[in-house]
Amino acid sequence: MTMALPWPFRALIWFCTVVSVSFAHKNVLFLLADDGGFEMGAYRNRIVQTPYLDALAKQSLIFNNAYASVSSCSPSRASILTGMPEHQNGMYGLHNGVHNFDALGRVRSISTILGEAGVRTGLIGKKHVGPGEVFKFDYERTEEQFSVNQVGRNITNIKLFVREFLRDAKDNPFFLMVSFHDPHRCGHITPQYGSFCERWGSGEEGMGLIPDWHPIYYVWDELILPYYVPDTEPARRDVAAQYTTISRLDQGIGLVLQELKNAGLEQDTLVVYTSDNGPPLPAARTNLYDPGMAEPMFIRSPDPKSRRNEVTYSMTSHLDLVPTFLDWFNLSYPESNSLNPLTGKSLLPLLYTEPPVDPDHVVFASQSYHEITMAYPMRAVRTKRYKLIHNLNYQLPFPIDQDFFVSPTFQDMLNRTRQGQDLRWYKSLRQYYQRPEWELYDLKLDPAERKNVHGKPVVKEVFERLRVRLAKWQEATEDPFRCMPGGVLLDTGEFENNATCFSLGQ
Amino acid sequence: MTMALPWPFRALIWFCTVVSVSFAHKNVLFLLADDGGFEMGAYRNRIVQTPYLDALAKQSLIFNNAYASVSSCSPSRASILTGMPEHQNGMYGLHNGVHNFDALGRVRSISTILGEAGVRTGLIGKKHVGPGEVFKFDYERTEEQFSVNQVGRNITNIKLFVREFLRDAKDNPFFLMVSFHDPHRCGHITPQYGSFCERWGSGEEGMGLIPDWHPIYYVWDELILPYYVPDTEPARRDVAAQYTTISRLDQGIGLVLQELKNAGLEQDTLVVYTSDNGPPLPAARTNLYDPGMAEPMFIRSPDPKSRRNEVTYSMTSHLDLVPTFLDWFNLSYPESNSLNPLTGKSLLPLLYTEPPVDPDHVVFASQSYHEITMAYPMRAVRTKRYKLIHNLNYQLPFPIDQDFFVSPTFQDMLNRTRQGQDLRWYKSLRQYYQRPEWELYDLKLDPAERKNVHGKPVVKEVFERLRVRLAKWQEATEDPFRCMPGGVLLDTGEFENNATCFSLGQ
Repeated sequence: MTMALPWPFRALIWFCTVVSVSFAHKNVLFLLADDGGFEMGAYRNRIVQTPYLDALAKQSLIFNNAYASVSSCSPSRASILTGMPEHQNGMYGLHNGVHNFDALGRVRSISTILGEAGVRTGLIGKKHVGPGEVFKFDYERTEEQFSVNQVGRNITNIKLFVREFLRDAKDNPFFLMVSFHDPHRCGHITPQYGSFCERWGSGEEGMGLIPDWHPIYYVWDELILPYYVPDTEPARRDVAAQYTTISRLDQGIGLVLQELKNAGLEQDTLVVYTSDNGPPLPAARTNLYDPGMAEPMFIRSPDPKSRRNEVTYSMTSHLDLVPTFLDWFNLSYPESNSLNPLTGKSLLPLLYTEPPVDPDHVVFASQSYHEITMAYPMRAVRTKRYKLIHNLNYQLPFPIDQDFFVSPTFQDMLNRTRQGQDLRWYKSLRQYYQRPEWELYDLKLDPAERKNVHGKPVVKEVFERLRVRLAKWQEATEDPFRCMPGGVLLDTGEFENNATCFSLGQ
Repeated sequence: MTMALPWPFRALIWFCTVVSVSFAHKNVLFLLADDGGFEMGAYRNRIVQTPYLDALAKQSLIFNNAYASVSSCSPSRASILTGMPEHQNGMYGLHNGVHNFDALGRVRSISTILGEAGVRTGLIGKKHVGPGEVFKFDYERTEEQFSVNQVGRNITNIKLFVREFLRDAKDNPFFLMVSFHDPHRCGHITPQYGSFCERWGSGEEGMGLIPDWHPIYYVWDELILPYYVPDTEPARRDVAAQYTTISRLDQGIGLVLQELKNAGLEQDTLVVYTSDNGPPLPAARTNLYDPGMAEPMFIRSPDPKSRRNEVTYSMTSHLDLVPTFLDWFNLSYPESNSLNPLTGKSLLPLLYTEPPVDPDHVVFASQSYHEITMAYPMRAVRTKRYKLIHNLNYQLPFPIDQDFFVSPTFQDMLNRTRQGQDLRWYKSLRQYYQRPEWELYDLKLDPAERKNVHGKPVVKEVFERLRVRLAKWQEATEDPFRCMPGGVLLDTGEFENNATCFSLGQ
């Protein structure tokens, strides 16, 4: 009889009967890369060598349509940890230095919720979110106590911290987030270590030594570049450096998983791997084009019945992670008068059954700032086939962050533009800077998002349907930017229970 | 012989010999209005009745060229309390609600510095700045503990809190900030009390009663409007409401000064009055036109030799207040490796001598946000004659905040624009929204800033001189926006000691 029920109910029943009684206690190990993309064998990159990530993938459900909800480090981490888009959790841009963004004090993060439920929480590596009271872990070894390289890139230290955390974790369920700083750039901060810190800890003179790291080097002219990277020597050398850094991430993943195994906790622990946002390359990080928001994701369940080395094509979002973690711990999101319910949903059912294809299934994304000066808010909705991007400050040129600006890739693009040379890229720099208010891409015909079809009669209905869905999501998630451009949001006084956009008559 | 010394030295010597030994202990009472302008007899408004402000002015040095450094509440308060422009202290916009701006944690406010020097600090009324650790007062009675109306507009409560603070203040020097919420608008929050909360506490049915307040009402068609207010019935009624609210502010000032007198502390206390930014009317608050940044200011010194009921024409800024307070307490600004020195200077010498007119004397202003959605950064420099405004996101329409949007004044402007009627204003709404990158005004010929002379050959040198001074100030105050528009600031890695702007080649 259950065959007649729609998929989510079937999956739910299956999950409840099959899974929930299987484990004495349940843990989560959450592995997060920093600016990592699909640079690994598991996602069919044939050059970069990532044996540990590939091994994890083989034991995991592999997500082929997982998306960040925002393409910037602090906002993405805050969205992952709160289950809310950046415009709802208040972390509109980078937390560090003069950018000074923080989540709203009223927001509750997964670490707070789990901590209150008796789950021991830990964070090792890069934190990059605040305020402290919103993102509080029982065990923290982050850049707030150490140099970020020593907790985020020194995989020997990471291994030892994980060992320390797990030693005290035997009696309680735990949630441990290991937040690698690789493969983030570092050329703007510590250029002496290379543009991706690929020399740091390599054992070369002056570079120090990370005992557990065996760097892998790549020949720049033998790489196969993704379409969004210009095919130039500086960009190729940049990507080769990125790949070397990925060997540190990959081996770090291996060390952490070995620690879990050594502690005898592998059979009690859900392992999740993803990255905060796309690589620091053109059209990627800080963009809502796919190179910016499409993310690698694996979920490895200890349940032998889970789908291992299978691929899910379900449309999924980082906003689904908080519901997933809560589901894993059999907890529900705390009710509150001041916060709307989360819009994500648990991914655990996917571990057992692939749902039927639903062309209307969407993910949403929202970006407002990165650096404090980069006021380029964008909102996006993506189905499997279409993506609609709303550029709210489209009158401005698309902003370039410091980190990316100094990169060899971008410097070369700039020089070529100045000298009138071929960029060996799929756009001109001017096209990259100047964007219209609306961008609509048919990803089936145009996966590289080269041809904006907004305004074409054939997609008029698609546009209208997506526009309305996006607006409704912005409303449901209380987006302060939802009346932009050209409008003012009133949501206090007589509009307190009836928030309304009013036109500025421009 | 001292006659041959330049003015600052003479003033300094006079100050040191005459003043510094005169008082057993010295206090500061700092009175701050919220969105208050020149609506008082002391500044030659012949309609509004402000006997207490006028009386204070008669005992004070009256500042005719005092300027806010930013035209938005939280940033202005943060700039007043830190001595740094908003782009340096990190409070780029409003602190409250979803706007969520905070000062940088490394910044030290006057309350912290004075507190560490043994001065007892108090804040009564609207606070609107954060984080708590940067703006910590020994005694706080603010909207963080009470409804803002009860601590910021209920002048009976204010009186009693001041009494309480002063009761315990006899043995220590103190710094007491009384931060009135009048004459701020409230139509967007509690419209039932009128657009300026002018009915709240009036004793009318349902309005409650503030025992010490005797509201003064105005006939809307008998007002004399300032040039920047449209001459329409809705705007006149709006201003009449504002004036009624000012009667609450004015009587509150009277009550607070009476408490100081009753406590026997009048002879030991420097009294400063100013407002955070201009009124919530067009071209005023959130603008760097003079109605937004020109502020009333009085300083009353207990020294009988100080200039009372005199006017100073010296160009002065809210950024001068921290140096003034420190000077009064004989303290110097704490040295730090991580912060540049303040750019303001003590105003105490002005209490004794008017300096010679210096046409090159300037004040600076800096505005980045107000609401989180209002990314319209502006930087300005003003001499007595000229003002140069740099609109960094000039491609965008000038943003309108919620508070001002719902005001009768603006709603009428919007309706008139839609209906093609005369705005009875000095600009069109379109002109107000669309601004060029640079605005240069000759305030001698054009005090209303109607005619942008940027680009005229006759002011080419003026422009260039002011542009360079503005850029230098942005550099000295570490403005993160100083490479905008069109540039990226690099100030880390190899540029750590050599911050540089690079062009984006747009």
